[in-house]
Amino acid sequence: MIDLDFDKGDGLVTAVVQDANTKQVLMVAYLNEAAWQKTNATGQTWFWSRSRQELWHKGETSGNTQVVQSIAVDCDEDCILINVIPAGPACHTGHTSCFYRDEKGVELNG
Amino acid sequence: MIDLDFDKGDGLVTAVVQDANTKQVLMVAYLNEAAWQKTNATGQTWFWSRSRQELWHKGETSGNTQVVQSIAVDCDEDCILINVIPAGPACHTGHTSCFYRDEKGVELNG
Repeated sequence: MIDLDFDKGDGLVTAVVQDANTKQVLMVAYLNEAAWQKTNATGQTWFWSRSRQELWHKGETSGNTQVVQSIAVDCDEDCILINVIPAGPACHTGHTSCFYRDEKGVELNG
Repeated sequence: MIDLDFDKGDGLVTAVVQDANTKQVLMVAYLNEAAWQKTNATGQTWFWSRSRQELWHKGETSGNTQVVQSIAVDCDEDCILINVIPAGPACHTGHTSCFYRDEKGVELNG
């Protein structure tokens, strides 16, 4: 296993979550070491919530869990790309992806 | 224009760079306000290098610039998704994407 570099991001690595089938980028979140262990142990995504300062099992309240299909690590080892099969929308707004607006605020399709 | 939230990330927003044609995730980098202005003004990607602590025009030395096709903003407004046409590999290792290994260190195709 690659040893992720949690130090550069103050104990966190950045994660990009991508739909394994459509290749749509769904969200960006952060993992501490505990979230990384939970993700590997359960095969679902776990993150560290920076706002709530707690471990966060994605979909625990919404039901919209994400089943991990594959994980890639970047050259610096401080960022990971998680390909998932999502059970539902990634965004708390109900959108498939958190990236649902362009830079002008215009809503995008999908 | 959406006002990006640079405060949550200590003056930086996180950017996911995706190939506009293949949908491959190429890299993750960070922008401060100056990099955001440069990206919008030039139509190419500019970042803030956390390691070198300087503004960084992607491809300035390698020639592998990235022409911006579209930008999406996430629900929290602290993260952006940039779809680009890359002039060459995104990674300094020569790989198309910085995410060229799985979590075990095995090299991936593409």
